[in-house]
Amino acid sequence: MIDGRAVTLQDIYAARGRLREHLLPTPLRESAWLSGVADARTLLKLESVQLTNSFKIRGAMNAAVRLAQTARPPAIVTASAGNHGRAIALAAERFGLTAVVFTPANAPAIKKAAIRRHGAVLRDEPSDYDTAERLAREFASREDAIFISAYNHPDVIAGAGTIALEILEAMPDVETIVVPVGGGGLASGVGVAIKSAAPHVTVVGVEVTASRPFAVGLARGAITRIDVSPSLADGLVGNLEPGSMTFDIVRQRVDALVSAGEEDLRRAIRGLAAEDHVIAEGAGAAATAAVLSGHAVRPGQRAVVVVSGSNIDLGLLSEILSER
Amino acid sequence: MIDGRAVTLQDIYAARGRLREHLLPTPLRESAWLSGVADARTLLKLESVQLTNSFKIRGAMNAAVRLAQTARPPAIVTASAGNHGRAIALAAERFGLTAVVFTPANAPAIKKAAIRRHGAVLRDEPSDYDTAERLAREFASREDAIFISAYNHPDVIAGAGTIALEILEAMPDVETIVVPVGGGGLASGVGVAIKSAAPHVTVVGVEVTASRPFAVGLARGAITRIDVSPSLADGLVGNLEPGSMTFDIVRQRVDALVSAGEEDLRRAIRGLAAEDHVIAEGAGAAATAAVLSGHAVRPGQRAVVVVSGSNIDLGLLSEILSER
Repeated sequence: MIDGRAVTLQDIYAARGRLREHLLPTPLRESAWLSGVADARTLLKLESVQLTNSFKIRGAMNAAVRLAQTARPPAIVTASAGNHGRAIALAAERFGLTAVVFTPANAPAIKKAAIRRHGAVLRDEPSDYDTAERLAREFASREDAIFISAYNHPDVIAGAGTIALEILEAMPDVETIVVPVGGGGLASGVGVAIKSAAPHVTVVGVEVTASRPFAVGLARGAITRIDVSPSLADGLVGNLEPGSMTFDIVRQRVDALVSAGEEDLRRAIRGLAAEDHVIAEGAGAAATAAVLSGHAVRPGQRAVVVVSGSNIDLGLLSEILSER
Repeated sequence: MIDGRAVTLQDIYAARGRLREHLLPTPLRESAWLSGVADARTLLKLESVQLTNSFKIRGAMNAAVRLAQTARPPAIVTASAGNHGRAIALAAERFGLTAVVFTPANAPAIKKAAIRRHGAVLRDEPSDYDTAERLAREFASREDAIFISAYNHPDVIAGAGTIALEILEAMPDVETIVVPVGGGGLASGVGVAIKSAAPHVTVVGVEVTASRPFAVGLARGAITRIDVSPSLADGLVGNLEPGSMTFDIVRQRVDALVSAGEEDLRRAIRGLAAEDHVIAEGAGAAATAAVLSGHAVRPGQRAVVVVSGSNIDLGLLSEILSER
């Protein structure tokens, strides 16, 4: 059973209605390369060319539109130096909200610049991510602003779920959908949509080996604090916040959790660029990496692999593409 | 005046109706990088993530669908080792037509493989491109097959023109559209659509400095045989076939022709990857290169730059991304 805060298919349809005039559907394109490797007809869902280069704009915009429609729209606040922070900044700009984004002091200058460019207030004094999140939540309580988590928020999850609706419409006979899992917002949204609308479709979530809060937590039956290592997929690394609604949703709506190692992430980034001419960041390549490792798709299936984002530094991309 | 063979806006709407259930609109996404360089709000039209990684599928499919609807569909034949050949092969496969593609013997193995993978008959005995085209036309006469030129064909031009309809709908206040020019099929389709539907919008065509058949021909008032040099934008290099309908259409419907040099092409490929996380082949980056050089967009304008394709070899891409 899902508790009262949970997200329904109806919420995802409502999100889609809100997003329709702001975001085009992203491409869904067959990959001859990955189809060959997996011995399965495999299509790529290219959130890598989504506005802000990441699927995160779906959830951020869904949350921002709802707040902008209220009588006295509040400020919104979040903690993220990555794709969610950028998406919140752009969504706030688009709908006339004030946004405050807390980031660690050592976040890349290029990401801070993108957040500022969209007119958000950047607060980069925190020493690390946990501090940034704590300060963001304190700011929200003190200033009557709304904290929008990168994953633990029903509007963010519903926004991410709109990806599944686009997949079902473009490919009604899909059998497996593979998504990356960090905080579980994307997997939750896709899981809710699929298990409500097409429950026979398998949803496979992919964590990175360096950070497996869901695999560990689900095995123990509760969110469990884990040690994480650095990963090429920086966007997928981190602990779940206590009480995150994504934990129960993933437990109930995602069929299988697998993991991708660093070497497979590199092979996936390289293969996507070489064979499908698509740039993916580490997190964005995680689902592809799991297909390469043979863990995500069974031979003969019709599969969709979500390429969730493309925000990778040129130096790192260039290094990976030059490898033999 | 345009002669009786010419393409009208109505043909482009008809093409769009045919393509609608087969091709999603491609993304149209603001580039903060290019907007900053041009001092103009600049969006990228990403045909680079189109099916087959190139806009060519629009024209190929439009031609193939029309033929497939006839009582006794003929075989189709073309000469191309590049994006058009691949698009024709896929379109024929999709609509149950026989396709024969003539390529030079020295065409890249990877491109030949892609054409064969879609079930087309590959004829790779010609020694060069001109021979391939001659043999393809002879084959068409002998076998009652239909020769579909990569640019000199009304259905191909009308298919390419559907890009302009997508741009006008997504950005009704666009002021300038920049497109690459090789044989002129894309520029013709966009020119017809724009000058019929929104004649105040400026259409800028971009040749590469290595191959300027339109610039030379328009200056002399007739198609003129020119010497061409190799270019990173291999898809844009070559002479116009005598009598090509694109010559008059470009003359009448394209507002300005500029050129992009090899160094700007490299900067454009690198910038698109680094700043917008988009892979472009040389031809696909030509319009962006012209914006970088300052020749294509005036400050303060609202501009769309077409990134027409992404079929670039990994080795070359990797080399360009590694440059300082």
